[in-house]
Amino acid sequence: MRSSDGGGPCGACKFLRRKCIRGCVFAPYFDSEQGMAHFAAVHKVFGASNASKLLLTIPPNKRLETVVTLCYEALSRVRDPVYGCVAHIFSLQQQAVRLQAELAYVQARISTLQHHLPIPSQAEASSSVCTTMDPSLHLCHHVCVLDQQLDNSM
Amino acid sequence: MRSSDGGGPCGACKFLRRKCIRGCVFAPYFDSEQGMAHFAAVHKVFGASNASKLLLTIPPNKRLETVVTLCYEALSRVRDPVYGCVAHIFSLQQQAVRLQAELAYVQARISTLQHHLPIPSQAEASSSVCTTMDPSLHLCHHVCVLDQQLDNSM
Repeated sequence: MRSSDGGGPCGACKFLRRKCIRGCVFAPYFDSEQGMAHFAAVHKVFGASNASKLLLTIPPNKRLETVVTLCYEALSRVRDPVYGCVAHIFSLQQQAVRLQAELAYVQARISTLQHHLPIPSQAEASSSVCTTMDPSLHLCHHVCVLDQQLDNSM
Repeated sequence: MRSSDGGGPCGACKFLRRKCIRGCVFAPYFDSEQGMAHFAAVHKVFGASNASKLLLTIPPNKRLETVVTLCYEALSRVRDPVYGCVAHIFSLQQQAVRLQAELAYVQARISTLQHHLPIPSQAEASSSVCTTMDPSLHLCHHVCVLDQQLDNSM
């Protein structure tokens, strides 16, 4: 994404077939080529007016991230009208649950193996494993929180 | 979400202060209480017209999922205007990467422990672990794909 640099209209104004005025809120983020396709999706899903209103409420130094996430959501919704980018959240959740199960299995395997080791090695191994099992790494918790948020939002 | 059942307008029409006609596309999903708050977010982020157009392109048996994901995206964007629900994707990605690292660590730990076991147990353990390491469980791959999709969408 590049700003329209003085020449033709930015991708948003080109798509909307309007004059690209100085200070156009879309110009820094939608160039006249690929930006036009991205803006088409944003326009279809959010509407140019809603996107413009939103951007104007965001500090300039955070607008690029806003445009990036808007484009991502819009393109996802165009590709998958039913689920949009929420499909990716579901997919990541499922993968996370499976990964968590895999981790639990491997941890159980470690416990089994440790029972077959001589006492000193067992103690050493146990200590090492426990110090790396940071509860904050447990994705299931975050998945549950996200599920709850999804429920609460309905 | 319940349909407006013959009485007052549905939550969408109540919010829009218009008559809720028979066959209103929003009525089955936005009741006149909580549905109104949800619709307010959908209206603010997507616009009533865009949401209506989208729903009309979706087969009736998939409209509930569509409304659920639209509400989720809209409420997320209202809460976090810069990142919206993409913040959850980033969060899940980060957690997945950390979980993957944790799994790699534990797998390495298993290898170390197996070297300290008598030959028969070692062989048995190795076989057991290998059969559960399904490549499809490797979330890093999916995270990379999602990253790529995010890059490509820009």
